[in-house]
Amino acid sequence: MSKPKVFEKPIGLKDYLPHAVTKLRQIENQVLACMASWGYEQIMTPTMEYYDTVGVASATSDQKLFKLLNNRGTTLVLRSDMTAPIARVVSSLLKESQFPVRLSYHSNVFRAIEEEAGREAEFFQTGVELVGDASAEADAEVVALAIASLKAAGVERFKIAIGHVGFLNGLFGETLAGRSEEQEELKGCLLGRDYVGYREKLRTLSLEAPVQRELEGILRLRGGQEICEQALQLSSDATAQSSIRHLCEMWDVLAAYGVCEHVLIDLTMIGDFQYYTGMTFEGYAADLGFPVASGGRYDNLLKQFGRPAPATGFAIKTTRILELIGDGAGDKPEQERILIGYDVSGRAAALTEAQRLRDSEAAVIVTEKMDAAAQLTALRSAAAAANAGAGESGKVLYKGVAFTKLLTFFTDNGEQDGAAK
Amino acid sequence: MSKPKVFEKPIGLKDYLPHAVTKLRQIENQVLACMASWGYEQIMTPTMEYYDTVGVASATSDQKLFKLLNNRGTTLVLRSDMTAPIARVVSSLLKESQFPVRLSYHSNVFRAIEEEAGREAEFFQTGVELVGDASAEADAEVVALAIASLKAAGVERFKIAIGHVGFLNGLFGETLAGRSEEQEELKGCLLGRDYVGYREKLRTLSLEAPVQRELEGILRLRGGQEICEQALQLSSDATAQSSIRHLCEMWDVLAAYGVCEHVLIDLTMIGDFQYYTGMTFEGYAADLGFPVASGGRYDNLLKQFGRPAPATGFAIKTTRILELIGDGAGDKPEQERILIGYDVSGRAAALTEAQRLRDSEAAVIVTEKMDAAAQLTALRSAAAAANAGAGESGKVLYKGVAFTKLLTFFTDNGEQDGAAK
Repeated sequence: MSKPKVFEKPIGLKDYLPHAVTKLRQIENQVLACMASWGYEQIMTPTMEYYDTVGVASATSDQKLFKLLNNRGTTLVLRSDMTAPIARVVSSLLKESQFPVRLSYHSNVFRAIEEEAGREAEFFQTGVELVGDASAEADAEVVALAIASLKAAGVERFKIAIGHVGFLNGLFGETLAGRSEEQEELKGCLLGRDYVGYREKLRTLSLEAPVQRELEGILRLRGGQEICEQALQLSSDATAQSSIRHLCEMWDVLAAYGVCEHVLIDLTMIGDFQYYTGMTFEGYAADLGFPVASGGRYDNLLKQFGRPAPATGFAIKTTRILELIGDGAGDKPEQERILIGYDVSGRAAALTEAQRLRDSEAAVIVTEKMDAAAQLTALRSAAAAANAGAGESGKVLYKGVAFTKLLTFFTDNGEQDGAAK
Repeated sequence: MSKPKVFEKPIGLKDYLPHAVTKLRQIENQVLACMASWGYEQIMTPTMEYYDTVGVASATSDQKLFKLLNNRGTTLVLRSDMTAPIARVVSSLLKESQFPVRLSYHSNVFRAIEEEAGREAEFFQTGVELVGDASAEADAEVVALAIASLKAAGVERFKIAIGHVGFLNGLFGETLAGRSEEQEELKGCLLGRDYVGYREKLRTLSLEAPVQRELEGILRLRGGQEICEQALQLSSDATAQSSIRHLCEMWDVLAAYGVCEHVLIDLTMIGDFQYYTGMTFEGYAADLGFPVASGGRYDNLLKQFGRPAPATGFAIKTTRILELIGDGAGDKPEQERILIGYDVSGRAAALTEAQRLRDSEAAVIVTEKMDAAAQLTALRSAAAAANAGAGESGKVLYKGVAFTKLLTFFTDNGEQDGAAK
């Protein structure tokens, strides 16, 4: 509990400098515009919510919630996702709106973290919720929109892996009836993608050979539409069967959207949110070890807020995409940056010209106190360098900042409008 | 400490529904674009900061800070402004950058509130900081940019009132030397704009008649450039005199910017942030009782973060402007909203057309499970109403949502591309 140094910020939290902000804002705007074009309307909710309502309903484990007390002594949390707050809004402010309701958001969310390297305590998500539609068509719409959103964000090579909570529940319920602890252990292995651990765990369970083969077999259930056919043979459990039929229907709709090249059915997949009740999915970018999008169906959450309704949605992990697309990818053409130097007599003309240029989309910086001899000299040499074609990629450097153009308004010395370049 | 109801959110916090978000985003984008055109680059900082660094340096009183503990037991605060976090960044991540540094932000900030009507615990600010320039020119630049930003936000009628911390400090130091308690009481009256209280307080101080007149006289020091001339006569204190000369210089620069019609010198003004050291200003919109922008010079804050530098800046109270500009003002032309209904056989054609329309900037909603007879009927009657020119302002209403156009792809019944309207 040592006192922090003045320049420090708390662990797991980041500053974003202008270059990163430009990129993050670009991803945000492009993804939100994509979601708007699919009819999803943006909402915003408070950073803080009641622990007893949204905090408890969220999928985040209790020890990962940031908690604080308000003036009345009631416990608040910093939101850990946007799904539970949106469920609250749909059940209160929007309770008169007819289903289906389509909402989008871009928001920071919070997770109290152990001090592990690289974990973030605050990060951005951009996502949608489609509330009031239980159909496979609705699930396919959010998957297709996730694909369109990742493309809008500038992610080029990625796969969406789709699974179904009901398949594993049905299969395990049938083969390991009454052995809920072992079921949870196996699910834990799958959630962590620890397939070696899963096989080892299976061997310790003394299962009959056909059951053992069946449960090992699901590790191979990854691929295209053919996986659905295979899975229908694997389990006769009613829940498992209807889950697979739901995924088959989704596949047909995704085929109509023309996006199956990005889709993979992966029946070992378990969403990491406890509120998922149906299909779940994750988006993986090429060469990246962690998902850049995740989503699923949560048909039981809304009733916790008093308006029972099926719902499905996803979130893109915007901050991770920022790391992924790196420098250069999808950059807008650079704005013209103009430096205007002036002395007192040239001031009015300089500031008028600055305003004219700003109105025409350029970024203009006017220099302070240009009557100081030293600065005048600096500016003149910068101008000379620019005229001579010197400077970094033809730019004018002034006080460490690169400009595309330099204009001067020095009238005290008989000069005027000495534009360089 | 009663348990909150499921639909409740904590006091002082707001949800923003789509219509409000559209407006808020529009103000945000237009103001940030304006700031960018003046060469200010956007940064983002974390929601949480250390209490001992940024928390203590911020101008917010201790009991108005939201505090929480991290896993190590260190006290964190939710940021109460962006000025102190930016001072931290300029002194750490940006410590190699040459002055002046121009930064902008759009951010939510937090204030723990008593449960007063209408007070907000979280609200948005859009602002700039100009660090490393002590000149009147720099102060005039931020005032001129505040004016340009308010215009960009859609505020049409407003005044910026400019004062100077040094004038009142100098005047009171000269006339009420050693009576710091009385000085603070008088400043408190001015801060609250309680001019009656100020006069009453003066009368209780048993001052000599000329001094009494002098201190009453400042209440009349509101107006244009002529106020500077009058104020120079009022006090011979060196601090007061140099403060007034600084305001005179600012006025000259603001005249060159051509914005004096929006500016008022008001020497009774005291900024409500304790870190202000020089000129301070507030922006008042017509017919509104509270400021929509505030700013000032804070030359002592940066040294608390280890990189002493003069600085000046302002913040627009974005959320208040949202209330101010109301409905309709500055709205973008409405996006075309198209509803596409289809049955299973028409699905592929419908979804392909939806994608084409989304690419051409329309918002398109495709209807779920259109083979249900009831929904088919609803859609057909909506189409019929649209064809007959009925419906709200020529729009198609479907499930409570208005669309500008309806397209159907029902091929099972031998119809295709039955576009209405």
